[in-house]
Amino acid sequence: MSLPATLPFAHQLVKGVLPPGGWAVDATVGNGHDTLFLARSVGAGGKVHGFDIQREALERAEARLRDNGVAHRVTLHHQGHHRMKEYLPPEWKGKVSAVMFNLGYLPKGDPTVITRPATTLPALSQALEWLSPGGILTAVLYTRHPGGAEEADRVLRYIHELDPRAYRAVQYRFLNRRHAPSLIAVFKPGG
Amino acid sequence: MSLPATLPFAHQLVKGVLPPGGWAVDATVGNGHDTLFLARSVGAGGKVHGFDIQREALERAEARLRDNGVAHRVTLHHQGHHRMKEYLPPEWKGKVSAVMFNLGYLPKGDPTVITRPATTLPALSQALEWLSPGGILTAVLYTRHPGGAEEADRVLRYIHELDPRAYRAVQYRFLNRRHAPSLIAVFKPGG
Repeated sequence: MSLPATLPFAHQLVKGVLPPGGWAVDATVGNGHDTLFLARSVGAGGKVHGFDIQREALERAEARLRDNGVAHRVTLHHQGHHRMKEYLPPEWKGKVSAVMFNLGYLPKGDPTVITRPATTLPALSQALEWLSPGGILTAVLYTRHPGGAEEADRVLRYIHELDPRAYRAVQYRFLNRRHAPSLIAVFKPGG
Repeated sequence: MSLPATLPFAHQLVKGVLPPGGWAVDATVGNGHDTLFLARSVGAGGKVHGFDIQREALERAEARLRDNGVAHRVTLHHQGHHRMKEYLPPEWKGKVSAVMFNLGYLPKGDPTVITRPATTLPALSQALEWLSPGGILTAVLYTRHPGGAEEADRVLRYIHELDPRAYRAVQYRFLNRRHAPSLIAVFKPGG
């Protein structure tokens, strides 16, 4: 083993808290890689909700989930993640084991459609609220695209301010590669 | 599992690269916790060299290693780590699988005896030179004590400048706890 790359490390952390039959949210479905990972990880009895504002992304993700035989475990919403609390089942509140964010823009999609602090921060806040004790939120931050560095900065400032009694938050980042994505993980103790 | 704490994460990374019978260096022996971890991890055929400038630290570490039956795998040097290249076996050059640093001061020791950039940076540079391809250097940084923040800053700046073709470097840090120790890990690809 070498040093874990950003996404595999996020998956490792999520796997550590996600019980079989658990509930998870992909806050940025994109091409559906994390959605598929979550759908597999929750197992036959589990359930995943996913959000994206781009129909193109949801179609690609839907195809990926179908190809892998797990589409029935996933509900995709053509909605921004800042509205997740309106669309998640009410009984999920405080019971979601994992929420994953992959910020920035859709790879091979329209590079001008990016996540922005005005919606990202409310989405993070809702995700933390819906997280179960013992649950984890992960967010991969990108700084290469226009607006990315500002978004990463705003997210980091928001996470820095979280009450340390209610949340434990870490960052995992590459130091000698410019614009390498970095990972934020927030753990809600208890449970 | 929750989020790994700093030291367990360092141990996890080191374990991932340290072969049975391997060679390792504890650059800051202190109370010998990491020395013991390394002596156990290298196994019966392995060997560890350790450095510390405080005799008190070396005595505590020596006792710990003896109590755990692994003292014969370890050579302790009453020398600063910035002189490691004078004291390591010449055949170890480029063949050390893991070097661990735990900066700051000796817990339950004299808090005015601290590691300082003037010796820490040369020690890091020598450690990287002696590392084998596929090997890893870890450094835990503390910022609470006087001089700690400056040292952490200097170490981070040094690591930021490492040639990305020769080394991959990451930082793992807690975001919403003031003065939580952070971990630097540097991996030398190849091997």
